[in-house]
Amino acid sequence: MQFSSPLSKFELEEGDVFTPRFDANGLIVCVTVDADTGAVLMVAYMNDEALRRTIETGTAHYWSRSRNSLWRKGDTSGQVQTVREIRTDCDQDALLLKVNVGGNGNSCHTGRKSCFYRRVSTPGGRQLVFAAS
Amino acid sequence: MQFSSPLSKFELEEGDVFTPRFDANGLIVCVTVDADTGAVLMVAYMNDEALRRTIETGTAHYWSRSRNSLWRKGDTSGQVQTVREIRTDCDQDALLLKVNVGGNGNSCHTGRKSCFYRRVSTPGGRQLVFAAS
Repeated sequence: MQFSSPLSKFELEEGDVFTPRFDANGLIVCVTVDADTGAVLMVAYMNDEALRRTIETGTAHYWSRSRNSLWRKGDTSGQVQTVREIRTDCDQDALLLKVNVGGNGNSCHTGRKSCFYRRVSTPGGRQLVFAAS
Repeated sequence: MQFSSPLSKFELEEGDVFTPRFDANGLIVCVTVDADTGAVLMVAYMNDEALRRTIETGTAHYWSRSRNSLWRKGDTSGQVQTVREIRTDCDQDALLLKVNVGGNGNSCHTGRKSCFYRRVSTPGGRQLVFAAS
């Protein structure tokens, strides 16, 4: 499987062909949400191979920028993400994955369901701190 | 208002202080969802100033990478995004904005509610096309 190259702006936005746009580092940002609740679980990146493997296997693969390596989510944690749907945005430089999470159901390496476990509070002080929940 | 610098990995993940990590281009990725339905509306980027203005004004500001300029969402379209909640992820290099959208309620410049209006279909053919809905 090989991805086609993006065509005109019109084709990119209104065409029938999936032509993902990887950035200068060969990556595309991916928002992963729970297929049942819609909750945002994590934001990660894919390179061409991670996206191909995700489509071919139906389980989420990412590119780890810190480890500089391909990464099948759940390989060590058991929190495999089964892909229910893949979407892309208007200019095809972002992906939206709807998944069901295996193992204990967490997606964050800190042991939480979602990576977005902190809400930014703006109490008027000089320093922005996190609020409860 | 000025953002503090990230501290240790532990502080970054478990600390009380919001220390957003901008990338080499000075940007941080932002997932914007509907505060009521949770639907993912768009993915965009903020620089330091866009994030400060978003926090200070309570309406979403982004950095346009194509136009290379700060951009108050809705300035021309009327689709102003009123921020209900800001979250960040474990390593504070991504933001999650929960918003209510003004104007006609759309967030995509193509005239749709969400930028993620196309689902990638994997029919087994050579070319990946978009499926209906």
